[in-house]
Amino acid sequence: MEHVHDSAASEPQMRWNGWGDAAKAKDLPFAVRSLLPLLLGRVRRPESPAALTDVRVSVSMLTPDDLDRFAGAVGAAYVDTTADGRLRHAGGKSTPDLLRRRGAEQSVPDAVVRPASHDEVRACLEVAVRQGIAVIPFGGGTSVVGALDPERGEHRGVISLDLRRLSGLIRIDQISQEAVLAAGTTGPDAERLLAAHGFELGHYPQSFQYATIGGFAAARSSGQNSAGYGRFETMVTGLRVATPSGDLDLGRAPGTAAGPDLVRVFLGSEGIFGVITEVRVRVHPQPQERVFEAWTFPDFESGVEGLRQVAQHSSGPTVIRLSDESETAVSLAQVGKIGRLLTRGASAITVYEGEDIAARRARTSALLAAAGGISSGEGPAEDWRTGRFDGPYLRDSLLDAGVFCETLETATTWSNLLTLRAAVEDALRAGFAEADAKSYLMCHVSHVYPTGASLYFTVLAGVRTDALSVWEKVKGQATDAIVATGGTISHHHAVGRDHAPWLESEIGATGIRILAAIKRELDPRGILNPGAVIPASAPSAQDA
Amino acid sequence: MEHVHDSAASEPQMRWNGWGDAAKAKDLPFAVRSLLPLLLGRVRRPESPAALTDVRVSVSMLTPDDLDRFAGAVGAAYVDTTADGRLRHAGGKSTPDLLRRRGAEQSVPDAVVRPASHDEVRACLEVAVRQGIAVIPFGGGTSVVGALDPERGEHRGVISLDLRRLSGLIRIDQISQEAVLAAGTTGPDAERLLAAHGFELGHYPQSFQYATIGGFAAARSSGQNSAGYGRFETMVTGLRVATPSGDLDLGRAPGTAAGPDLVRVFLGSEGIFGVITEVRVRVHPQPQERVFEAWTFPDFESGVEGLRQVAQHSSGPTVIRLSDESETAVSLAQVGKIGRLLTRGASAITVYEGEDIAARRARTSALLAAAGGISSGEGPAEDWRTGRFDGPYLRDSLLDAGVFCETLETATTWSNLLTLRAAVEDALRAGFAEADAKSYLMCHVSHVYPTGASLYFTVLAGVRTDALSVWEKVKGQATDAIVATGGTISHHHAVGRDHAPWLESEIGATGIRILAAIKRELDPRGILNPGAVIPASAPSAQDA
Repeated sequence: MEHVHDSAASEPQMRWNGWGDAAKAKDLPFAVRSLLPLLLGRVRRPESPAALTDVRVSVSMLTPDDLDRFAGAVGAAYVDTTADGRLRHAGGKSTPDLLRRRGAEQSVPDAVVRPASHDEVRACLEVAVRQGIAVIPFGGGTSVVGALDPERGEHRGVISLDLRRLSGLIRIDQISQEAVLAAGTTGPDAERLLAAHGFELGHYPQSFQYATIGGFAAARSSGQNSAGYGRFETMVTGLRVATPSGDLDLGRAPGTAAGPDLVRVFLGSEGIFGVITEVRVRVHPQPQERVFEAWTFPDFESGVEGLRQVAQHSSGPTVIRLSDESETAVSLAQVGKIGRLLTRGASAITVYEGEDIAARRARTSALLAAAGGISSGEGPAEDWRTGRFDGPYLRDSLLDAGVFCETLETATTWSNLLTLRAAVEDALRAGFAEADAKSYLMCHVSHVYPTGASLYFTVLAGVRTDALSVWEKVKGQATDAIVATGGTISHHHAVGRDHAPWLESEIGATGIRILAAIKRELDPRGILNPGAVIPASAPSAQDA
Repeated sequence: MEHVHDSAASEPQMRWNGWGDAAKAKDLPFAVRSLLPLLLGRVRRPESPAALTDVRVSVSMLTPDDLDRFAGAVGAAYVDTTADGRLRHAGGKSTPDLLRRRGAEQSVPDAVVRPASHDEVRACLEVAVRQGIAVIPFGGGTSVVGALDPERGEHRGVISLDLRRLSGLIRIDQISQEAVLAAGTTGPDAERLLAAHGFELGHYPQSFQYATIGGFAAARSSGQNSAGYGRFETMVTGLRVATPSGDLDLGRAPGTAAGPDLVRVFLGSEGIFGVITEVRVRVHPQPQERVFEAWTFPDFESGVEGLRQVAQHSSGPTVIRLSDESETAVSLAQVGKIGRLLTRGASAITVYEGEDIAARRARTSALLAAAGGISSGEGPAEDWRTGRFDGPYLRDSLLDAGVFCETLETATTWSNLLTLRAAVEDALRAGFAEADAKSYLMCHVSHVYPTGASLYFTVLAGVRTDALSVWEKVKGQATDAIVATGGTISHHHAVGRDHAPWLESEIGATGIRILAAIKRELDPRGILNPGAVIPASAPSAQDA
């Protein structure tokens, strides 16, 4: 076993009130600016967002003693109480987050604390427990479900625990194709470090450029290559976790029957049970070959049938995704371009990486063709690849133009997929109509399984009143429709605070009690991410 | 969605003091009887086991009121207090179980209660909580880790909750390739019911003929076709569970990020949190074609390298397994035959089922050949298939001949596999030598993963003193070696009571506390399977 600890260099800093690197911000193309009023009616350009220098942040509730103690845990240089530092940890990157971030008054954590090791994380948790301060674990800051809000709960203060100094490749076992990564390592850093050994993780969610390995684990992330390499949780073979009342080092063997799989208790725990500090993952040799092919189906329904055949025959694409007719037409969420109007049909992307590509492609192509698909060659698939991380930049431009833009997602069985899509779109359309707003809805399938698939919706709307409160209501109605129609409340965005009110409808009151019992055991003072995933005071049978 | 509820017919009743159908019991072949003294020294034939009619069972501690209440829950016909019925629920089928079962005095549950539905299970749990009676959930009765011992804990009585009347195919969704099976459905019944719709589950552990779907889930079972269809837990898409303090209906969508996966809390829970009553599983169309091919490697090490290549390249066998030189030579555990002595080398079995067999076989064969394997044709692989459920019958014959025979298993990463095998074999050999017993050890790899594999040991020993206490000590030393060398305490036999003392070494004190917290929440009176998996009074940080 080779032992290395490479340090890693990070991506450019994320904009505090928008997505990604300010240098990469995109203007809306002329064709789009012309098209939008036709689709959504005239919308007013909103006031410019507040400049960073004009923003007033909430006063820090931490005492000098608190700060000294955190400094004792991580070093004074890594306890940040500046307005700028705290603003950059004020929450995630959902559209409501970004709309809130346009104002001059901002609610922010009382400090940002940056541990560099498992032991420093544990030391921070000890200080927080002793001082009665809430802790919001913070990775790439890309949550779109409110998992990073600086919520104090019943505590007198709240810190953002920024984990990005826990960065690097701790260990790689080339024989077993397993690597241990520090939890704060970002997607690009992880791939860079693994590539130096000839390996790849192959996990590319849209947040890839900023999100961290620990965040992928905590939120049960799923990436664009999920057909080939699986959801992130299927890559995880072990976790190291610091909790307020004890450490865990989980995942002893690739196959085990040693009681319930406790790794799975922390995958999806979103920082409410403990802080993931190391993630052991299955890796694979870097693919030497990569082939792209796009397809066009007569309609979404036939495309879904094609994808089902591919998933159930395990025919072997690394990426397979299908846009519905409206997404295909606008080609926005998919290729990050507006204006390349196709007249009709539903387009799909396939990518093959690794070995035996010819055979896998032949099998897959035969199934897609049998479902009515026609190959449209490499071009559109290469376009998708080029633009696949650009969606959030375009959203910023749309918001700047006064167009409401947001995404939501779910999953269900194949037999229920079209019914669920219709129910969600009906709820979204009706909701915006109630608010007297025109909307344009797009949907794609981007993660397939033998028994079902995901549905990812992109919503554009011409909202002329308070977009935040309109969306809160519409999103609630859409989530009600998901629950009523048998979908999951999230396929890969997770629960956070935004979906928490619906979690009981998914796992039942007894399920909530299980989560609350684990939380009471590991975090009896309730300092970790209060209000995320489960209500702060979930019921217990023992209380009854 | 088609709704059906087929009733199912069961296999012949299991022998109360041995394996399976008494009619299928096997005499040891002459060659074996001649060989054993050479390998193990002379052993004395033990006294004949007690006849069923001579056995005295423990007195039932249940009152007429208890029995009336259980009868109220399930019907009087399904509350069994006969000695015969209770004896058949006295425990599992490990070698220590069978050795204990040879005596005239037997410890048995106070009654056997047979609910027929989820609601009847819940009613039984309510009676048990109210009356203060422990409950041992019982499926096929094939545990080899003491998970079925009639342990009362702090309660005044204990029942065996036999779940085999919860049998049948509740629902099948042919589009999504998903089926819901009642938890007490046995392996053969499940396959028979699915086959009527053209589907298969494809889960074939050695216990297949008797074990139940709920038992597979509760114990994290792994079957012979795991390379093709995965461990049982990867087939499970949902569970219905009755607990003493609430029901659960888990598993809403094939991919979800709605908090931690609570299905995984019950997979591996071995009846300590609740009773699994329904299992939703991924199924696949029955394979139309099946190809067998055996291989011979120069030695176990080169065979392991071949299997690693197959697992890491996903080359596609449905079954792949490799016997070490001593197992190959005696060919016992693998094909259920003793006496077909091969001179040297390590034999492997491959089976391919389903689609694209030619391509999968070509890829796999190329990898095995590159590692030094030579095809030995269909014959030995067909032999393996014919005898693959016979191992436990042979064990009965060996025990009758006074030869100690038992199995144990673990798993680890590829890089640690040979080190772990050596450590376990050293511990076993040394342990038997201390007891002045000759031993013969065999090992095979039968479950492979990209990052590692299982190790399954079959132990023969000429133990001339008290075999039970000798084995207890030797097994403990082997388990210590597993823990010290980084293996898991069980790959697929589970924890039960036999491995419970070592679970903390695998998941840590904090891990045990998580399990204990879930148990306190769901089973606050501790009626469910006391002493299995976790100690009855596991510590809590809140108590400290």
